[in-house]
Amino acid sequence: MSFEIEDSEIDIVIAALRSDLTSFFEGWRAIFSRFHIIIIKDPDLQADLHIPPGFDHKIYTKSDIQSIIGSTKINFSGHSCRYLGYLVSSKKYIISVDDDCLPAQDINGNPIDPVAQHMANLSTPATPFFFNTLYDPFRPGADFVRGYPFSLRSGVECVLSCGLWLNVADYDSPTQAVKPHERNTRYVDAVLTVPMRAMLPMSGINLGFNRHALGPALVPALRLRGEGKHRWETMEDIWCGMCVKVVCDHLGLGVKTGIPYVWRSGGGNAWESLKRESEGVKLMEDIVPFFHAVKLPRTVTTAEDCVLQMARMVREQLGKVDEVFVQAADAMDEWVRLWKVISSR
Amino acid sequence: MSFEIEDSEIDIVIAALRSDLTSFFEGWRAIFSRFHIIIIKDPDLQADLHIPPGFDHKIYTKSDIQSIIGSTKINFSGHSCRYLGYLVSSKKYIISVDDDCLPAQDINGNPIDPVAQHMANLSTPATPFFFNTLYDPFRPGADFVRGYPFSLRSGVECVLSCGLWLNVADYDSPTQAVKPHERNTRYVDAVLTVPMRAMLPMSGINLGFNRHALGPALVPALRLRGEGKHRWETMEDIWCGMCVKVVCDHLGLGVKTGIPYVWRSGGGNAWESLKRESEGVKLMEDIVPFFHAVKLPRTVTTAEDCVLQMARMVREQLGKVDEVFVQAADAMDEWVRLWKVISSR
Repeated sequence: MSFEIEDSEIDIVIAALRSDLTSFFEGWRAIFSRFHIIIIKDPDLQADLHIPPGFDHKIYTKSDIQSIIGSTKINFSGHSCRYLGYLVSSKKYIISVDDDCLPAQDINGNPIDPVAQHMANLSTPATPFFFNTLYDPFRPGADFVRGYPFSLRSGVECVLSCGLWLNVADYDSPTQAVKPHERNTRYVDAVLTVPMRAMLPMSGINLGFNRHALGPALVPALRLRGEGKHRWETMEDIWCGMCVKVVCDHLGLGVKTGIPYVWRSGGGNAWESLKRESEGVKLMEDIVPFFHAVKLPRTVTTAEDCVLQMARMVREQLGKVDEVFVQAADAMDEWVRLWKVISSR
Repeated sequence: MSFEIEDSEIDIVIAALRSDLTSFFEGWRAIFSRFHIIIIKDPDLQADLHIPPGFDHKIYTKSDIQSIIGSTKINFSGHSCRYLGYLVSSKKYIISVDDDCLPAQDINGNPIDPVAQHMANLSTPATPFFFNTLYDPFRPGADFVRGYPFSLRSGVECVLSCGLWLNVADYDSPTQAVKPHERNTRYVDAVLTVPMRAMLPMSGINLGFNRHALGPALVPALRLRGEGKHRWETMEDIWCGMCVKVVCDHLGLGVKTGIPYVWRSGGGNAWESLKRESEGVKLMEDIVPFFHAVKLPRTVTTAEDCVLQMARMVREQLGKVDEVFVQAADAMDEWVRLWKVISSR
């Protein structure tokens, strides 16, 4: 039921929000040097990028984005620039990690290979129809527990692997402001399938996914008015994750969360972000009920069409609530259009 | 949002399937000696029980069961005898552990207190409406991740804590037969809420629950024709767990799974059990779709009535498939009747 993934099937996509990526790439050298790397430079970033030699990489700058995309309503600045990498890649699998993260160590202090762990998650089935208390049954040394129906053990294809973070956890700005010194030190040696119909707040910090299966469902749609460069000032990934989960539940695909961990340094003053009124925190109160209630028609059978269908529902149902949702719906439409254009070139 | 649970609110319930419980109780002495312990002797067990001194316990034998219950269709032999303890207890919380389990050690080799960990799970909210990728947000050092809606953070009362097992995992007989030497060595330092509408195969090996909230939903209903004394020859707990999860989803209560671990010795020859045709494995193929589809009317607002309602549906829908389901439905009715009688004494 599991399969092998070749290195040549994988693109690493890095959003460069800082110019000096030396320590980042040195930290990842043992892992990333085997792969092709797509680096998208934040369009707001002026200084030249510093990337140490020895990596097979291609950099996309603001002018590259413009020449590829042309005129667009989608804003690719900040963390959202990585989505261009998803678009221009021709590979089946994407790994994306924030540029303030390094590979973590496991419980025994041994360095881990997050790319290999993401691929292990993606190359074995997900089991969204029934919960396995022993976590991912496809990990070595694990299996399905007594009572797990045999007819559900083959599971479905896993297309999204959500990794986690040691040190600085991915909190929203109020939580980060209240607990500025809290560090996540608990290495939970587990990965599990997020059950059918359960929604999760996907973080874009440390992700692996099947680009062929999910296509334009990885969409840079929700742009906060006060969006900044700190993760707690963004929501693009949370919205994107809700879209992806709906697509997966609808198309019979799976999502796993858990290992691999990355070591996240993060930083910044969350109180500054709080002054922007925690716009994203408020929006979630409308977003979650919407996505919980979304039901796609059976006639919709591709990720593209799922996104278009959701865009229509977002415009109709959430558009009344806040203008940012209308813009999100527009971006979703636009993204599918771009995806079709670029992939047909 | 969390609260304190007094030792006096807890009963430990032990099903004695072996007569010599000396090493079991010595292994648990540091923990169990603080609590009242209800020991139910398997009615099939002839020899006297050996229990070391120093424990506040009460033993219920076959004749005690008969004098308490009178004539009944419910079969209390084997693992099912523990349910009598749930019935006769007057405490709010129950902890039940199989008599072949000892407290496990944590990742650092320190002895853990499974009772304290179950109570930590039960005294903090469960969060079934949205998935938290950082696991139980109420554990020290954890919190809700970015994107988790604030309106859902207060969660619901957690009423069931499903613990896990190191060493011998809880596999069904085919898996156990195929992997007789596999040992579960992975200590996953996590506990999480099982999401709304996700069903799980609850194991009765290592459980804590809120007896007042769940009442007769912990029901010894499904009795296999070839039921034996090995866990892989039983399904009572799996069925019970499906009932409990439906009740929790309906009443707005929560279920957690994960820590605490117990060290399980287990043993026996699973090939012998396979000869009994893995009856339970087959039955799950009907049981799971049934419980996935169960919808209880809004007018049903107590655990008692949920069980009665499910019994009716079991009889109508599953009764046609196999006679054991008719017996399960009868046992559910009978159990609610007994629960009312005993609790009114």
